[in-house]
Amino acid sequence: MDNNIAILCSGGDVSGMNPAVKHFVEYSIQKGLTPYFIYDGYEGLIDNNIEQATYADVAGIITKGGTKIGSARSKRFLEKKYRKIAKKNLDKHNINMLVVLGGDGSFRGLDIFYKEHGIKFCGIPSTIDNDINGTEYCLGVDTALNVIRSALDSIRDTASSFKRAFVIETMGRDCGYLALVSHLTSGSELCLIPEVPYNLELYVNEFKKQLHHGRRYFLAIVSEGIEQDTNEIAEWFEKEVGIEARVTVLGHIQRGGNPTSYDRLMGYKFVNYAIDALIMGEQESVICYDKNGFNLKSIDEVAGIKKDLDPELLQYLID
Amino acid sequence: MDNNIAILCSGGDVSGMNPAVKHFVEYSIQKGLTPYFIYDGYEGLIDNNIEQATYADVAGIITKGGTKIGSARSKRFLEKKYRKIAKKNLDKHNINMLVVLGGDGSFRGLDIFYKEHGIKFCGIPSTIDNDINGTEYCLGVDTALNVIRSALDSIRDTASSFKRAFVIETMGRDCGYLALVSHLTSGSELCLIPEVPYNLELYVNEFKKQLHHGRRYFLAIVSEGIEQDTNEIAEWFEKEVGIEARVTVLGHIQRGGNPTSYDRLMGYKFVNYAIDALIMGEQESVICYDKNGFNLKSIDEVAGIKKDLDPELLQYLID
Amino acid sequence: MDNNIAILCSGGDVSGMNPAVKHFVEYSIQKGLTPYFIYDGYEGLIDNNIEQATYADVAGIITKGGTKIGSARSKRFLEKKYRKIAKKNLDKHNINMLVVLGGDGSFRGLDIFYKEHGIKFCGIPSTIDNDINGTEYCLGVDTALNVIRSALDSIRDTASSFKRAFVIETMGRDCGYLALVSHLTSGSELCLIPEVPYNLELYVNEFKKQLHHGRRYFLAIVSEGIEQDTNEIAEWFEKEVGIEARVTVLGHIQRGGNPTSYDRLMGYKFVNYAIDALIMGEQESVICYDKNGFNLKSIDEVAGIKKDLDPELLQYLID
Amino acid sequence: MDNNIAILCSGGDVSGMNPAVKHFVEYSIQKGLTPYFIYDGYEGLIDNNIEQATYADVAGIITKGGTKIGSARSKRFLEKKYRKIAKKNLDKHNINMLVVLGGDGSFRGLDIFYKEHGIKFCGIPSTIDNDINGTEYCLGVDTALNVIRSALDSIRDTASSFKRAFVIETMGRDCGYLALVSHLTSGSELCLIPEVPYNLELYVNEFKKQLHHGRRYFLAIVSEGIEQDTNEIAEWFEKEVGIEARVTVLGHIQRGGNPTSYDRLMGYKFVNYAIDALIMGEQESVICYDKNGFNLKSIDEVAGIKKDLDPELLQYLID
Repeated sequence: MDNNIAILCSGGDVSGMNPAVKHFVEYSIQKGLTPYFIYDGYEGLIDNNIEQATYADVAGIITKGGTKIGSARSKRFLEKKYRKIAKKNLDKHNINMLVVLGGDGSFRGLDIFYKEHGIKFCGIPSTIDNDINGTEYCLGVDTALNVIRSALDSIRDTASSFKRAFVIETMGRDCGYLALVSHLTSGSELCLIPEVPYNLELYVNEFKKQLHHGRRYFLAIVSEGIEQDTNEIAEWFEKEVGIEARVTVLGHIQRGGNPTSYDRLMGYKFVNYAIDALIMGEQESVICYDKNGFNLKSIDEVAGIKKDLDPELLQYLID
Repeated sequence: MDNNIAILCSGGDVSGMNPAVKHFVEYSIQKGLTPYFIYDGYEGLIDNNIEQATYADVAGIITKGGTKIGSARSKRFLEKKYRKIAKKNLDKHNINMLVVLGGDGSFRGLDIFYKEHGIKFCGIPSTIDNDINGTEYCLGVDTALNVIRSALDSIRDTASSFKRAFVIETMGRDCGYLALVSHLTSGSELCLIPEVPYNLELYVNEFKKQLHHGRRYFLAIVSEGIEQDTNEIAEWFEKEVGIEARVTVLGHIQRGGNPTSYDRLMGYKFVNYAIDALIMGEQESVICYDKNGFNLKSIDEVAGIKKDLDPELLQYLID
Repeated sequence: MDNNIAILCSGGDVSGMNPAVKHFVEYSIQKGLTPYFIYDGYEGLIDNNIEQATYADVAGIITKGGTKIGSARSKRFLEKKYRKIAKKNLDKHNINMLVVLGGDGSFRGLDIFYKEHGIKFCGIPSTIDNDINGTEYCLGVDTALNVIRSALDSIRDTASSFKRAFVIETMGRDCGYLALVSHLTSGSELCLIPEVPYNLELYVNEFKKQLHHGRRYFLAIVSEGIEQDTNEIAEWFEKEVGIEARVTVLGHIQRGGNPTSYDRLMGYKFVNYAIDALIMGEQESVICYDKNGFNLKSIDEVAGIKKDLDPELLQYLID
Repeated sequence: MDNNIAILCSGGDVSGMNPAVKHFVEYSIQKGLTPYFIYDGYEGLIDNNIEQATYADVAGIITKGGTKIGSARSKRFLEKKYRKIAKKNLDKHNINMLVVLGGDGSFRGLDIFYKEHGIKFCGIPSTIDNDINGTEYCLGVDTALNVIRSALDSIRDTASSFKRAFVIETMGRDCGYLALVSHLTSGSELCLIPEVPYNLELYVNEFKKQLHHGRRYFLAIVSEGIEQDTNEIAEWFEKEVGIEARVTVLGHIQRGGNPTSYDRLMGYKFVNYAIDALIMGEQESVICYDKNGFNLKSIDEVAGIKKDLDPELLQYLID
């Protein structure tokens, strides 16, 4: 029999996973499959934390960030002996199709698992960092951008009241996407990202001149992956530009929040394509979204390759 | 001289116009142009309500719905004599390039104006109805969807507390886009849109069965353009399905709210493409966004043609 | 044995009931009582829809509007024979203490029930209308006010963009509290409530003058209980003042939304006082909140008496 | 002449200042006074950054955090010579009444200024820390609580998805009010505030037991004023309880955001009482809000006295 299908989340959770998990249950049933949840990522696969899923399990989860079925990073899954156990657990439930929400590390592990044990899978790129090669969009990015936007709108009010520079650190690891888009959509005065070398000295005179002409505040958005520590940027404002400065590290609030319409819709579509791909016999693939819409890519096109930032966005920064 | 450029908003305002207006000022100046505001749409063009714009005019507007420069519908602009006056007013300011945020009716009027007076323009599709042919996205749609989502999330809580059906009417004129996407992203039980004929009788037994099995509420999303009055749908729930029902007409809250990241970024990009097109000598065009990214289309490809709903979305409804 | 205690919600649900229900479970257990849920108000009492409650039942509900245990209006509870059944059901579970979230009608029914069957109860005033005599605050009001505020902020943006009057109808039945406070906190131009006679003619000249001097919009907040239909107010703006007008009926979104901090804290405190009162042997009382803080009042001080609007707030309207 | 009145904001800005500033202009004019703005606190007083205020200045500010007229801390105002200059500046504008939004340090400075120069003033307690003696409420607290609530709701989703402890640091200086109320209204598992000594060892066994029984996450809310560094609390979770932990310092987002209904209404009332007091001839007072409603207190009752946390709230923590 070929109609038991499971879903798991791996790596950092994102807002949008719950809508995807909800639609996974609905669409699986619609397609005549029996849906299963694997809890806590590959850890649950190894520990046989696997249960059949019903409509009741997903009632009301569409409005919640994070993931109802848990996510985890798993060191054990890197070891062959645990993958063997994982396979046995899947066999117990007659599951031979997996939908995996995660990042490229998660997909790479799955690739090995497929090659060893022949479990078909389809990956759905899910990370607020938007740093997965081959796809323009990863689930969770839109919600993260809107959480950041809301925080920046608040901070701007207080910055302009008090004549201060605010240096705001966003997530993103080595990818400046969140910082760059937040810069363009908040009208901040400075944006530093790992992809673009910068020289703060070039800004000193301009910023001093603006202060002299009455500017009351600066917002600087800094991606966590730049070379300097965020506190150093604040010190630069105080010492070189001559304005009191404060640092705000947005941290984990960026992962959360009620999923936006966009992330709910993308979760819906990603799941549809993933399940369709598995039904059509695709063995190991990742659903990507780019100018041509949704399409399947191989693991090798996605995992382990450094993604370049959208050159159009980069151009906006440089202009 | 060819470097005075003006912006105006026409038709229903949307959230996202302010970020576009802000970036219009910034990008015009960056490109060596002198930006002007035309207030209150074609009415301001006729009444010479035109002013040079500065950075200071757009400080802080990025977070606000609506449009700082006002919008209007203009009957006078349909008359040749008023268009003549409009041309004279533009001449007074040496403006021969227009960026227009509006819908297809607005573009059509502009087309006539161009043919009569040779004023170059570039249109940016802006309507929460998302019903403009040739573009997959119109400015303001994402914010509207998120406002609706937030309202639906609230209504669901109260519906489930009280064993009720809620019939929620969304905007959209003849286009069911807002209703359909809201249905998919809220997990509502029923969605009625103008594009898809429906027969309520087909739902009666299923809904009664669900009630019998413990369902506590129904959410029904109804696009304003369907044949029946929304109140009739509520009556149907009460009489045929047998559950108390309430109507909520979301109304003008759908137009407003702090623009989402997506609408801010789209406003930014639309404006960039519009100004670039005018600088490159495009005479009369509309910036559209589709699978191939942003591209210029002629008025005839955009205005006066009924837009079909995305077949993929329609398929989700029918499934 | 005297340590089984139950909670029920009666009448319209409000945001804040869930935090109260959550704390009911926690505080009951802390006090050595065994908590029970009665589902769907008095209907559940009659139908023996009663279950012991645990921590797990209330996990995560603090962020949700409405009430997890359902609410209802019950005609049957007005009949003696059904109250007899209700008593029998409580006896089956050895419950002789009730905490009831509801309005004055709900408390009146409970009063009769107590007199017939000796079931002790404590009422917690819960209605967004804030119209219960003897208490300055009813659970749910703060969330409702903030939902209205957010809607008004959105509508103002679109109103000012388009030169329109917006007539916004709020809930409140015969009580203008929501409308009046929303007026003061939104800076609207007109507020009509049932408690204050009005004469629209007195506003015509002033409003016309303001239009003449450049005012672009009016916001008028109208409580549902005034004599005229809200649409008539819009017609007045169009015909007498001379500005296009639109009506928005906020409707049921006012009941919902994630409970505010204030409603969560008030729910917490109300429940503490209610359970303490029952433990101390209070037979039938309502927890009220006024200048002296929380205190117990008898049913007769609360139910069936028309509440007067806070004279200080009224004065603000008249000034 | 005795009818020029000015407002200034001093110390950290809070959300609610703008609604207060708006109503200051309206109510002053209503009472026949001429309103003035003093920009950037005592700095503007010294630098004669003082301007007459009009309705137009306050249009639209009710929805914004921070303060349109700026706030500052002023070392110069501690010096007699600068206060002399300040007095001269007020004289230039015939201003002899001041409304001051600030904290107790600001009021103390004003007290000296009054004693030296006879400028009447009325203080309005404004700080998110809610640490001013003599008043139960300070402007800005409700908005701060709701911003924190929203952040906690988001973090909980991601914490429960990933089996983590989150240690969240709130503002409050030496006062645990924000942390304590946030704890009660978010249902967090641990709350540490400066007012209550704690011994983490007492929690270890209980928390380990909960983990063993399936608990997936802990939220710990920590007030910035406790003895330990917040990172040490996270380390304790990792080392002693045995769960991965993350720190989030909420920082300046707590100051901002669209003012809540409550802060808008309190701003309205505070201003009314302040202006009325000055008109009635009060020389130097602070408007406080406690169980008896609004009332005037002397500087000595307010400034320089450590405020005790509400014993009722403290009791909730200890129970």
